[in-house]
Amino acid sequence: MGKLTGGDPSLLRKINSSVVLRALRDAGDAGDAPTLSDLASATSLSRPTVEGVLEGLAAAGLVVEASGGPEARRVGRPARRFRFRAEAGHTLGVGIGAHRVQVVLADLAGRRLGSAGAPVAERASAEARLAVVDAVVAEVLAAAAVERGSLRAAGVGTPGVIGPEGTVRLCSALPGWTGLALGERLRAALGCTVLLENDANAAVLGEHWAGAAAGCGDVVMVLAGLSPGAGSLIGGRLHRGHRGAAGEIGALHLLGRELTPEHLLSTDGEPLHPLDEAAVSRVFALARSGDRRAVGAVDRFSRRVLHDVTALVLALDPELVVLGGWAAGLEEVLGTLRRELPEYCLWAPRVELSALGEDAVATGALRVALDRVEEELFRVEAPG
Amino acid sequence: MGKLTGGDPSLLRKINSSVVLRALRDAGDAGDAPTLSDLASATSLSRPTVEGVLEGLAAAGLVVEASGGPEARRVGRPARRFRFRAEAGHTLGVGIGAHRVQVVLADLAGRRLGSAGAPVAERASAEARLAVVDAVVAEVLAAAAVERGSLRAAGVGTPGVIGPEGTVRLCSALPGWTGLALGERLRAALGCTVLLENDANAAVLGEHWAGAAAGCGDVVMVLAGLSPGAGSLIGGRLHRGHRGAAGEIGALHLLGRELTPEHLLSTDGEPLHPLDEAAVSRVFALARSGDRRAVGAVDRFSRRVLHDVTALVLALDPELVVLGGWAAGLEEVLGTLRRELPEYCLWAPRVELSALGEDAVATGALRVALDRVEEELFRVEAPG
Repeated sequence: MGKLTGGDPSLLRKINSSVVLRALRDAGDAGDAPTLSDLASATSLSRPTVEGVLEGLAAAGLVVEASGGPEARRVGRPARRFRFRAEAGHTLGVGIGAHRVQVVLADLAGRRLGSAGAPVAERASAEARLAVVDAVVAEVLAAAAVERGSLRAAGVGTPGVIGPEGTVRLCSALPGWTGLALGERLRAALGCTVLLENDANAAVLGEHWAGAAAGCGDVVMVLAGLSPGAGSLIGGRLHRGHRGAAGEIGALHLLGRELTPEHLLSTDGEPLHPLDEAAVSRVFALARSGDRRAVGAVDRFSRRVLHDVTALVLALDPELVVLGGWAAGLEEVLGTLRRELPEYCLWAPRVELSALGEDAVATGALRVALDRVEEELFRVEAPG
Repeated sequence: MGKLTGGDPSLLRKINSSVVLRALRDAGDAGDAPTLSDLASATSLSRPTVEGVLEGLAAAGLVVEASGGPEARRVGRPARRFRFRAEAGHTLGVGIGAHRVQVVLADLAGRRLGSAGAPVAERASAEARLAVVDAVVAEVLAAAAVERGSLRAAGVGTPGVIGPEGTVRLCSALPGWTGLALGERLRAALGCTVLLENDANAAVLGEHWAGAAAGCGDVVMVLAGLSPGAGSLIGGRLHRGHRGAAGEIGALHLLGRELTPEHLLSTDGEPLHPLDEAAVSRVFALARSGDRRAVGAVDRFSRRVLHDVTALVLALDPELVVLGGWAAGLEEVLGTLRRELPEYCLWAPRVELSALGEDAVATGALRVALDRVEEELFRVEAPG
């Protein structure tokens, strides 16, 4: 008997707090804020226990008494109502790319409060790139009137392979990035927990949460770009690989003796540089206008992506492939994939364009930050 | 109280039986067979409960009183000892290939009692191939003096994509195999539960159980052969893919405009046919003797395997790659993989030759059969 209900009383208090907080969070903004009785019934805890827990949560700033409710308009003493203070803390999603930094801000319940982005030079130093991150974070916080000290967790998506200790183990796309203690640098700058994730991994989490892969657990997301990469969900979980390098398919074309995207997309024999959104848009626009060399370039590039996607599809057999990275030109690549994948795969998966576009990496990074916050606040046992 | 110990009494009996049987199985042949007291202490069940369970298991033929033990040599009434009758039933592992059928036989504890194999023509019809399977099974059963009626489960590894209902959804390597209700046919022939698995999937399970991948949970196994395929373990579990087609990389070379193994390994401009062990051995032997065309053929073939393996490694980032399929010539391919994989992968995995050789598929298939038997006999809760 003692074994089941006894044990560490502070752990029991934490479990009860989490259960009540989760019930409040799930009640959300829909309908009336719950009363003490509502919470006791939803959590199977006694009224005195719920009352004690609420006092502690209120003292921690996580719960506040809600005004209003149907009783407030009636005669007699109204029942007290409570709500989760989602504004008690904030979360950030940061996407650091070769040409752009993108940041989204949300509260503890995951409601988006704002976003901002800024360009960054492909050859910018690590310090310069970090300065842009800092400026965009400052901008998005200021616009939403949120203090930096209110941040609870930030997720960060970046090209490269991330080590478990929060350093960039390897990144060929960004100057000065390999070996950078990126987690430590951003923790110091943001003053909160920082969680790093590979950009394609973050993107597939973003599309799964709120984009083209919603409701689909077996997904490969391919990010076109300077160094193409892929992120995969298997059974709804990220597959990172033994060393965190799963989906780093950039080198595969070397074997087929094909060329880099800069060469493939060239229309004058010189590598396309910088290989940013604007340059890529120009090539795709030229191709649409019928320019013969641009048509050739787009075709060569599409076949390169087809080759990479085929390799991933044959290895993993996903239900869905999501194509993202650039906003422009991917319709042409999508057409090639949909037309030609069935030639090489036993069963070709669905292929969709990213629904989140340039927000995909930052949105997935935000999901990573929210997962951590939820783990800390609500998840004392496996979610029901 | 009633909720924890009450419930279905027959379920409780089954749980107790499984717990006692597992304890007996785990006691195995090491040391003395356990006594009633040993079993009561190992299972935390009361002596009368254990005694009742043992009676039921003995009646079912799964447990027998063991003779001997230290007391038998002493004065006075010896304690009764018991052992699991692993010989109460048998399991089969069957590997069906383009050129060979291989069968292994084991008891309920997984101890190997024998194996046999026979060649089969690459173009043999489905009926002819099934007749070879039947003959080899008969041979291995006769050699071990085991009745067909004693079979509890058979695992079967075969090329192709297996549907959940035990039919071959797609198989280009074996004539008449696509659409074949292989599970039903073999169930009728063997008179026991039949579990189908893709050959490369079975092979990686075999190498993980008793071969080159022992102790390693993130493995890609590549089977060289007529239609190269791969099987992958991720975190110790088979990754089959959304439609069971994960690792079916046979078509990838078409994209790189490379050729089929028959053409790659040709030394006279004509496709190598049949592409069996003997033909392949000849080409590799010629290459070793310095024949220029054979050296070129082996090099082309090795680069094709390198390309397939690179695609799998970049997609999955495994800890280990196991190379199998043929017995001959794979040392040369292994050399190419070990030398060149580091050029294309951020971190090249270890690469090893199959330790089980032509037994790999049948051994993995046997593991599949044993898993089912253990689930039925021992696994009423998650294994400790």
